[in-house]
Amino acid sequence: MRTHTAVNSTASPHLASVSTRRGGPIAPSRGALRPLGVGEVKITGGLWARMQELNAGVIVDHCLGWMERIGWIANFDRVAGIASGSHAGIEFVDSEVYKLLEAMAWELGRRPDAVLDERYRGIVSRVAAAQDDDGYLHTSFGHAGQRARYSDLEWGHELYCHGHLIQAAVARLRTGHDDELPAIARRLADHLHTEFGPGGRPAVCGHPEIEVALAEFGRATGEPRYLELARLFVERRGHGTLGTTLFQGHEYFQDDVPVRDAEVLRGHAVRALYLSAGAVDVAVETGDDELLAAVESQYLRTIARRSYLTGGVGAHHQNEEFGDDFELPSDRAYAETCAAIASVMLSWRLLVQTGDARYADQIERTLLNAVLVSPRADGRAFYYANTLHQRAAGAATTDDELSERAEASMRAPWFEVSCCPTNVARTLASAAGYFATTDGAGVQLHQYGSYTVDTTLDDGERIAIRIESEYPHAVRVVVVDAPERPVPVSLRIPGWALGRAEVAIAGVTTLATDSVFTVERSLSVGDVIELRLPMEPRFSRAHPRIDAVRGQSAVERGPLVLALEDVDLPQGIDVEHVELDPDFSPVDDFDGAIVRLRRRTAPEDDWPYQAAAAELGEPFTAKMRPYKDWANRGPSTMRVWIPVSGG
Amino acid sequence: MRTHTAVNSTASPHLASVSTRRGGPIAPSRGALRPLGVGEVKITGGLWARMQELNAGVIVDHCLGWMERIGWIANFDRVAGIASGSHAGIEFVDSEVYKLLEAMAWELGRRPDAVLDERYRGIVSRVAAAQDDDGYLHTSFGHAGQRARYSDLEWGHELYCHGHLIQAAVARLRTGHDDELPAIARRLADHLHTEFGPGGRPAVCGHPEIEVALAEFGRATGEPRYLELARLFVERRGHGTLGTTLFQGHEYFQDDVPVRDAEVLRGHAVRALYLSAGAVDVAVETGDDELLAAVESQYLRTIARRSYLTGGVGAHHQNEEFGDDFELPSDRAYAETCAAIASVMLSWRLLVQTGDARYADQIERTLLNAVLVSPRADGRAFYYANTLHQRAAGAATTDDELSERAEASMRAPWFEVSCCPTNVARTLASAAGYFATTDGAGVQLHQYGSYTVDTTLDDGERIAIRIESEYPHAVRVVVVDAPERPVPVSLRIPGWALGRAEVAIAGVTTLATDSVFTVERSLSVGDVIELRLPMEPRFSRAHPRIDAVRGQSAVERGPLVLALEDVDLPQGIDVEHVELDPDFSPVDDFDGAIVRLRRRTAPEDDWPYQAAAAELGEPFTAKMRPYKDWANRGPSTMRVWIPVSGG
Repeated sequence: MRTHTAVNSTASPHLASVSTRRGGPIAPSRGALRPLGVGEVKITGGLWARMQELNAGVIVDHCLGWMERIGWIANFDRVAGIASGSHAGIEFVDSEVYKLLEAMAWELGRRPDAVLDERYRGIVSRVAAAQDDDGYLHTSFGHAGQRARYSDLEWGHELYCHGHLIQAAVARLRTGHDDELPAIARRLADHLHTEFGPGGRPAVCGHPEIEVALAEFGRATGEPRYLELARLFVERRGHGTLGTTLFQGHEYFQDDVPVRDAEVLRGHAVRALYLSAGAVDVAVETGDDELLAAVESQYLRTIARRSYLTGGVGAHHQNEEFGDDFELPSDRAYAETCAAIASVMLSWRLLVQTGDARYADQIERTLLNAVLVSPRADGRAFYYANTLHQRAAGAATTDDELSERAEASMRAPWFEVSCCPTNVARTLASAAGYFATTDGAGVQLHQYGSYTVDTTLDDGERIAIRIESEYPHAVRVVVVDAPERPVPVSLRIPGWALGRAEVAIAGVTTLATDSVFTVERSLSVGDVIELRLPMEPRFSRAHPRIDAVRGQSAVERGPLVLALEDVDLPQGIDVEHVELDPDFSPVDDFDGAIVRLRRRTAPEDDWPYQAAAAELGEPFTAKMRPYKDWANRGPSTMRVWIPVSGG
Repeated sequence: MRTHTAVNSTASPHLASVSTRRGGPIAPSRGALRPLGVGEVKITGGLWARMQELNAGVIVDHCLGWMERIGWIANFDRVAGIASGSHAGIEFVDSEVYKLLEAMAWELGRRPDAVLDERYRGIVSRVAAAQDDDGYLHTSFGHAGQRARYSDLEWGHELYCHGHLIQAAVARLRTGHDDELPAIARRLADHLHTEFGPGGRPAVCGHPEIEVALAEFGRATGEPRYLELARLFVERRGHGTLGTTLFQGHEYFQDDVPVRDAEVLRGHAVRALYLSAGAVDVAVETGDDELLAAVESQYLRTIARRSYLTGGVGAHHQNEEFGDDFELPSDRAYAETCAAIASVMLSWRLLVQTGDARYADQIERTLLNAVLVSPRADGRAFYYANTLHQRAAGAATTDDELSERAEASMRAPWFEVSCCPTNVARTLASAAGYFATTDGAGVQLHQYGSYTVDTTLDDGERIAIRIESEYPHAVRVVVVDAPERPVPVSLRIPGWALGRAEVAIAGVTTLATDSVFTVERSLSVGDVIELRLPMEPRFSRAHPRIDAVRGQSAVERGPLVLALEDVDLPQGIDVEHVELDPDFSPVDDFDGAIVRLRRRTAPEDDWPYQAAAAELGEPFTAKMRPYKDWANRGPSTMRVWIPVSGG
């Protein structure tokens, strides 16, 4: 009830700083579980530590370098009158600066870094200088030679940019600093409330984001007007007020049906997911259980019918949209990195509200496959769209090449629409926020890796535990400090391990058959809880309505989707000319799996719909590796789904 | 050598009118075969007669009505200064007026029609009044308040519109009239030669069309400068001179590789096919066999690897582009009607050059499935894109609704980009032009239906035959008039009938095992040649590299692709929940086939990539009907490819 009280009180700097003590990306005032703050969960090793090191050491600098070099940060200087020239980039490049500020705030929250701190403050000052006296802040609109403020709500992305600024401010507050950026965000949010609040323009932005930002900023600052404005934006949507175009109808903008009346996520995937996340926040804080149930139902249907094996969503390149139910082509999977991140945001909100482990499963699957596939191993290039089937090896991009946004088969260093790299940066920096929760009485471990949880329970007692795992191998939970009374520690049993996972405590091994295994016994310092997961690779088949992969099989290993690349096949054989032997169970091989294949030959220069028997060659074995790592060895063709001999 | 001589002579009204005697849409000066003119092939009954009646009686009026109503024809009056208001529609709506003028010219060529003639002349006069003194003619560019001429070659579509005007003039010449529209076209073509010819702007238009138009206009008028300009436009392409955008790269415009160096058709499908057709015309008239061979090779590869079962091409909605080899999703088949028509144009050119029956097969398949699916049965609505799999039944459109261009599941009466209805109109009006040829010594029948061929052979002798067929049932060829010496009459044996077709003459029946069956014997008046085709419906399976339809089967009957629609299934069962019984051979049923299906049930609200056994119900039978007729009974879901039980 902590934040709930704050939201319903008048704004107070004191209350605001109080509410920053807990909560990572979100801090809802109610729900089955409560997020832990940046000081309470710390990643200490393994894959996620390596990713965070890459983020802090390379990705943030890479993004900063590009945005300085091509003038996106200088756009603020231009508005401030201290730089000349015209606006660089498309209308919404401000948002990339803000997402990077959010990433930097979370990084600074993880551990002090004087150099990063100075850079952070430097950029914030440049942003501050561009803020108009009435709080408005945008480098593409409202100044001399620019279009008027809010003159293009469909495409201008003004409130979208504002939302990202406000989310960056939330990150700053949640990492313990109520300083310049939160002050900028307050002035901006106050301006927005005047402009779009009760009695103001009854309008919405073409790209949702302001909803989720304002709701969280309301939570972080204790200012109820911000939440109220978020609520208004959610409620106003779905009434066809946004102008449509030749290609983008009301559905594209989620402006076809009110949020609470929709049946499934549709239209532009990132828009739909950001909006849903904001709607959950609004529903939670206003006690609107009907709205909450509506979004949950829509999202469950989306997971069941409109999601790729990787957790990626968005089946259409055209309009970056969801397709119909079960329309999930591998080769045209758009599965935008930002949509995957947005789905993690939504999954997390619903996990915290409901405690339903399905959402933690979805976060695991999405982070490890659909998000981590984006950055190249060296952190200097990114996927925007994430295909599950690459038929033609692309050419390698250079570090100087500004790419189009989604068609490249290779990761690109930067994009004209460059939403994904900065979104990856803020997600990596705040990843620990998605790992564990408390319910006041105990702690719940949702994601695995090497990290520590150190929190105070409602009764004031401390519990500190250390989780050790080069996940997805076995997980060891070591108790560092615990009250004398029994404190429930819950472990999510991943859906892929259900019925095969074991939990061992003090020599007693139990088969885990439910999606959550709770250790209820009293814990002592040094106690070890071991979660043993079935790590042998496994074949996965798709629902029969997913036509695109009928007769094909994927291979998964723990939470990782594997992929077959040309570079792992014998010379002269490519991924388009092999079939998988279904009678040969895939064999564990360090981070991947060995499968048995046969080369398939069929004439390719005749009419392709006449009976032409394909010939199969002698079987051979090949290694499949984690999907997230594909194309890190150069241009390659790739398949997640492989035709199975005999269907 | 007839037209070849003309092209190499200086322009002459007399020569031009001489050259209109023969040739429908094209009249190349060399090639294995020669097209027949509008007076030489006449459709007399059956499907094609019904389609031409629909065209003359409904479609032409429908298009005219829409273009008058929304001001597209009045755009010419505005430029002429006799109407006020601003330009209606997008930049290239002139082209729709021209394509309709082409359709009207072919219709008038088929048979006199005083009302249509008056309408035709009326529109031509309005077009004439909008022509600038120097020959330039466009309603979106170059006048007060408009952008300058040729200031947006990538997207302005100026030369694209000019090309369609010139093609309309070719139709007028080929139907025996060297009057106002050919005169307008001459002035325009002369202007273009000055502007873009040798020593002029070394530029190309973003949308090819001018190439094929100028080459044919050169043939029709005998003016070599027009052919020369067509050649320049073909040769200039592929050197990256067109500016690219965030979404459209050089490949989109076929500006990535010179035409003669490309390996396959790629980029925007209509652009690629119009360009290829123009390149064939240029290659034929300039003796450039290397260019001809290059286009033929590209097209054969496109047929083998980038074509749908219907003959439709263009696998991507995004950019209306070809996909990669074998990337042919049913549910996202763009298969634009205009691309199908453009492929008929190219197939016809290559058929005439090579005599290779594969091209006639492709014309048959494409016309009967990918083109004829476009118009609704009543001729008042059209498909723009032609999916092979409709997962969700769309809402019915009304006759007042101006649609977006490609996303509707139902046919729409008109589009903001309305290229397809007028393209259908000109194709139906000129359809007979694709049916038969002569090689000077005899005649070749490529398409079947009820029509007459009446032509004079090189030796001056007349041959007249009547073809009777409610195709695709048996075909009867009746000799009406023939020389006393043997005249070879060749019948194409459709690829789908090879080895099963029989030809019966005077009681002697022969199995046809080659793609062309030539009757060499002397023919007498009243002689009957009967072609008996195997009309039982057949299962078709796709090449194993076409992932999208693996484990699925289509059903074809003769040249017709069949489709399964919800409305033909028992109440409560839809096309997404059935499997095809492969052990039950489809049974002929008038225009379709009876197949055996089972209902398939599988949970749809869980994670869709976990083993969940599907249950199959009791078998039942249902009718599949011609794909071209689908959704004529109201909104429906539909599948061409049906999952096969047991893969």
